[in-house]
Amino acid sequence: MLILNSPEVTQETCVRWKIESQVALVPTMGCLHEGHLALVRRAKELALKVVVSIFVNPLQFGPNEDFKKYPRAFEEDCKKLESLGVDLLFYPTVKDLYPESFATKVSVGEIGHRLCGAFRPGHFDGVATVVLKLFEVTACDFAVFGEKDFQQLTVIQQLTRDFNLPVCVVPYPTVRAKDQVALSSRNNYLSPKEREAATQIPIAFKLAQEEVTQNPRQTVEELLKKISPLLTSQELKLQYLEITQNRELLATQPNDCIQSLILPHLFVAVYAGTTRLIDNLSLKGFIYEKA
Amino acid sequence: MLILNSPEVTQETCVRWKIESQVALVPTMGCLHEGHLALVRRAKELALKVVVSIFVNPLQFGPNEDFKKYPRAFEEDCKKLESLGVDLLFYPTVKDLYPESFATKVSVGEIGHRLCGAFRPGHFDGVATVVLKLFEVTACDFAVFGEKDFQQLTVIQQLTRDFNLPVCVVPYPTVRAKDQVALSSRNNYLSPKEREAATQIPIAFKLAQEEVTQNPRQTVEELLKKISPLLTSQELKLQYLEITQNRELLATQPNDCIQSLILPHLFVAVYAGTTRLIDNLSLKGFIYEKA
Repeated sequence: MLILNSPEVTQETCVRWKIESQVALVPTMGCLHEGHLALVRRAKELALKVVVSIFVNPLQFGPNEDFKKYPRAFEEDCKKLESLGVDLLFYPTVKDLYPESFATKVSVGEIGHRLCGAFRPGHFDGVATVVLKLFEVTACDFAVFGEKDFQQLTVIQQLTRDFNLPVCVVPYPTVRAKDQVALSSRNNYLSPKEREAATQIPIAFKLAQEEVTQNPRQTVEELLKKISPLLTSQELKLQYLEITQNRELLATQPNDCIQSLILPHLFVAVYAGTTRLIDNLSLKGFIYEKA
Repeated sequence: MLILNSPEVTQETCVRWKIESQVALVPTMGCLHEGHLALVRRAKELALKVVVSIFVNPLQFGPNEDFKKYPRAFEEDCKKLESLGVDLLFYPTVKDLYPESFATKVSVGEIGHRLCGAFRPGHFDGVATVVLKLFEVTACDFAVFGEKDFQQLTVIQQLTRDFNLPVCVVPYPTVRAKDQVALSSRNNYLSPKEREAATQIPIAFKLAQEEVTQNPRQTVEELLKKISPLLTSQELKLQYLEITQNRELLATQPNDCIQSLILPHLFVAVYAGTTRLIDNLSLKGFIYEKA
């Protein structure tokens, strides 16, 4: 496995590869868990050459967020990627991607202000900026993103469409632990008690799923009222709980009937202690289940 | 010459071409004059396949600017490009490049607020956004830009560097009429009297050049004081006259000595009647001339 810091050398390498085959990229912030590895296995199915990037992107962290303490585990990450047969690990420094003269950014517009964006101003602009750079550096034909960060995936799909990027963005289903909690590098922050409390998220999702299957005609407000109590406790503080209506993640009205929505999707963010956890669930399938 | 509206078909075509050769792009807003044609000839020297785009980009026009009345001459443009052996003319509609869902934009940062940007808020973000899209659609290896729009060229160079775009941005010297007025599609707006007044710009440039050659130790303020009177008359209203200091077009201080600047560059914008004209001149060479 090649390990490269330089954007220029990485670009040269990938452009050379592209002549004879295709390149699939898995962008990560490292501290790799089974969720990341599932993305890498998917990438291996898509293209002959697989590139993984590890970069904790300062541009997508707010001033009071966890950029500095974000978990890093480079040696172990390398072993995992090597064993999966990754061809190139792109591992730039902050200066490699953002030299002093750096000034141009992506602005994702309205979607960047909703859901997580309402609580993390500039976050999705930072994500879109680094992802565009990674797409260019790796000249990738495919890029695999986990549905765990569903708003991020939507932002990247919008970026790709709006800027005519010649990249196929491939979503991959959220990988969950045995207790159904979504895998996340930030789960490393959780105390055993907080980890236990986090299981309320999949429990709430199960209830939402049952509710929608039973009564797809109920309103957004009715459904949210039933599940939000599960997400508030001594260990858990609800940041937001929302249902969006379509592929663009447009907000719904409280009295919108779930069944009438094009693509109802449930989003949640909670704090377990000081750790922020997010998760999401498509409700569309459960409506159809009954119909 | 292929003429295509569709970004998707254009991208497919160009990506196919790229396998066997290289692609050079000349982005234009149409109403082609000898300046544009010089860019096309330069493109022909750079790559086997030459793509010209004609698109009057609404994103780079302010609400009170001349988007609607901007001169269009499609039939004549086609003949000119055909006769130069252009391979593909990309001629999208506004909806082709900006469908209803379009939301992601490029933000060029501080440089977008200086010089022309101070008077045309959002202009360079609009330019950078469409140019990024054109780079992606045409998969170009080279893109040729005239130095007439020097700040635009600088913005595109910054965009290309900051986003790691695999494109070589090629500057081309300003093409001037016999009377040394820079060619511009907007010259079509000028009355004979205004056209005559516009010659004050190259006359002012000649004075600046002589002044700098004679006395490279004079200050920015001293030099500007000498040339600004030439740019104010009944037909001419000066919008701005500035000297920048380096490749990033950073502003100078009034008492900066011209000779001490890394890359002194003179910028001017005037109104001749209701028509806005811009021009620029590198002063670096004239300092060296004497030294």
